[in-house]
Amino acid sequence: METGIATVMTTLGQQARGAAKAMRMANTGAKNRALQLAASVIRREMNEILAANAMDMQAAEASGLDAALKDRLLLNGDRVEAMAEGLEQVAALPDPVGEIDHLRYRPSGIQVGHMRVPLGVIGIIYESRPNVTADAAALCLKSGNAAILRGGSEAIHSNRAIAACLRRALLDSGLSQDAVQLIDSTDRAMVGALITADQYVDVIIPRGGKSLIARVSAEARVPVIKHLDGICHVYIDAAANAEMALNIAINAKTHRYGVCNAMETLLIHQDAAALVAPIVQAMLDKGVEVRGCDRTVAAVGGLDVKPASEQDWATEYLAPVLSIRIVDSFEQAVDHIAAFSSSHTETIVTENHEAGQRFLREVDSSSVMWNASTRFADGFEYGLGAEIGISTDRLHVRGPVGLEGLTSQKWIVLGTGQTRK
Amino acid sequence: METGIATVMTTLGQQARGAAKAMRMANTGAKNRALQLAASVIRREMNEILAANAMDMQAAEASGLDAALKDRLLLNGDRVEAMAEGLEQVAALPDPVGEIDHLRYRPSGIQVGHMRVPLGVIGIIYESRPNVTADAAALCLKSGNAAILRGGSEAIHSNRAIAACLRRALLDSGLSQDAVQLIDSTDRAMVGALITADQYVDVIIPRGGKSLIARVSAEARVPVIKHLDGICHVYIDAAANAEMALNIAINAKTHRYGVCNAMETLLIHQDAAALVAPIVQAMLDKGVEVRGCDRTVAAVGGLDVKPASEQDWATEYLAPVLSIRIVDSFEQAVDHIAAFSSSHTETIVTENHEAGQRFLREVDSSSVMWNASTRFADGFEYGLGAEIGISTDRLHVRGPVGLEGLTSQKWIVLGTGQTRK
Repeated sequence: METGIATVMTTLGQQARGAAKAMRMANTGAKNRALQLAASVIRREMNEILAANAMDMQAAEASGLDAALKDRLLLNGDRVEAMAEGLEQVAALPDPVGEIDHLRYRPSGIQVGHMRVPLGVIGIIYESRPNVTADAAALCLKSGNAAILRGGSEAIHSNRAIAACLRRALLDSGLSQDAVQLIDSTDRAMVGALITADQYVDVIIPRGGKSLIARVSAEARVPVIKHLDGICHVYIDAAANAEMALNIAINAKTHRYGVCNAMETLLIHQDAAALVAPIVQAMLDKGVEVRGCDRTVAAVGGLDVKPASEQDWATEYLAPVLSIRIVDSFEQAVDHIAAFSSSHTETIVTENHEAGQRFLREVDSSSVMWNASTRFADGFEYGLGAEIGISTDRLHVRGPVGLEGLTSQKWIVLGTGQTRK
Repeated sequence: METGIATVMTTLGQQARGAAKAMRMANTGAKNRALQLAASVIRREMNEILAANAMDMQAAEASGLDAALKDRLLLNGDRVEAMAEGLEQVAALPDPVGEIDHLRYRPSGIQVGHMRVPLGVIGIIYESRPNVTADAAALCLKSGNAAILRGGSEAIHSNRAIAACLRRALLDSGLSQDAVQLIDSTDRAMVGALITADQYVDVIIPRGGKSLIARVSAEARVPVIKHLDGICHVYIDAAANAEMALNIAINAKTHRYGVCNAMETLLIHQDAAALVAPIVQAMLDKGVEVRGCDRTVAAVGGLDVKPASEQDWATEYLAPVLSIRIVDSFEQAVDHIAAFSSSHTETIVTENHEAGQRFLREVDSSSVMWNASTRFADGFEYGLGAEIGISTDRLHVRGPVGLEGLTSQKWIVLGTGQTRK
């Protein structure tokens, strides 16, 4: 690593460690006051934030950034207000830190239980949305952690302005402003420095597209909580209620296209093949392109279904495109999911108890559903209050990650002088 | 990686993935029967196991292995019987897999909860004790995982014999024998292959000395659940009960010396300095060498206390040696722990409610105790039934790791046809 970058990282890391120690012990009231104050400061400094954002938008214009990226980058009065409200919502969530559970007496006479504790220093790496600066920092603060934020270079002015508000609020509420640090450099080598600084950073959460997450995962020395693809399946079982199956399929595919919990492949049991044509018709009516297996193509008569290739089963379209496969059996559906799913979210539609129970048990995804739309895989819908991401990892936390996912549990032992015999 | 090793690893990995898929769905009865059968097979094959162990002992003799290592390597009738009993004990533990908790209704009408699921494929890397082959495999099997075992090369014959018994029992109870695979090569490069095989292995658990764990942590691409040092502290507060303080200090230091949860440093509040001389006397009576800060040396009059160096505070003695420091305040004790502890286990002895509560909250170790000996930091004492190790990591699991530590939780959603509005 280049000396300049190493020095910057050491400073950031040491400051974060110091702040994490203080945040770990900060009481709930102080953390909530800081978050509420941050909301006020952001409202008060709205003009400054919008001016900074205008500089980013101007640079984006000049460099020819595409329209979707520019929309993510753009702030306006409503979006800044939404950021402030987000901070207040996190302030209103219960504080997970210090929660004690499962305290039990053991035969030795000691009481043993768990206490929930912060992870320490969390590195967040994200792309062009400036609101992540406020959202991610708020979740880290509420869960008693210190955050090191690294946003996309195209949002640097916006992020600086937002981070300055958060740090001002921390300072004014008597907490360490280094609990929120923004990497104030657009040098890409800083990402490499952050994800390998295992003496200073306890976990990295990348939020962004596949290439960002792949790079971070490949190079990190710090543990990563990551979200890869969302290739989600709906399986319509032989014993499905026809109307429910249609509703769930339509909702899972067409409620929003560009989201990770949208259905990408629909599996239909051959005994429910009568549902294929009406579902395809409904999808076509919504403007969804349909690609099907041979039996699907045969089942829909004259409807416009293109033949699906092997590649389709492995594709996260994030678009109005759907692949459909008719399967011989429950087992074939589960095998297809095991082969092609990204282990994000799958749902079964069935009235059959055994099929539903088996699906819940046998499908190994972060969310497994029975008679509900995949679109429910979301921290707010699950009651987490807020979400820093969705984990497709196996260790520590799977699925939507809220405040608890940013904590761990230590053991506590209460005795009255017991010694080991 | 060398081609031969890569090929071996690919075969092991693919077999493990296949077995993990089957084990994930194996029911509790089948897993328990396999474990009970494994106990029978081990008892039946005792002579074979002892003959294999004799070959290892002979090689150890020839290569001049030291006495402590030879003792760890040695099997005899009692030790083989203990292995069989260990398997039966794991069979008797509750099965964590499939346990559903916190199932709640959400405003949308869906029910959301967690289901406990296996991690998948677990790589265990250990040193000379052959009993780890049976103990670790049993915990992996009961928690629905597949294990790839890599024991020390000095125990290869013993490990082969034990693994053969386990695989025989799996086969005879209708489960996949590849749920337990032993790396049948003493080539050290196989360790490198195992810890970087992130497409096949979900977590690595190294069990052994510091150098093994340091190497595995530095080189692994697979997540590691690791146990570094145990530099454990007892802090005798100003408000300690004198007799309790003496008992806990003696127990924490002298109950066993070579264990990770033994006390290495004793901190004593200056207002409790009257306890220093009697504790030192008791330690000396037990044959413990005492090294103290200047105030400790001054406080014990003529007793034999050597001056402690900075290095002493950072040393895991694993031996009859104790360092003692008199501190000015509760805060200084907590700061000393933050600076020198390995975050394994610390205890406070106090009758003061505020000091006890603050210690529990402010000390960031995997086990934090109040009026109990550090020696209780143990899976059996905590009620886990068995223990695969003690984690000093922050993510996923901290402290003693039992069956639950070898599992994760997925979300399950039960609906009646709900779609997202």
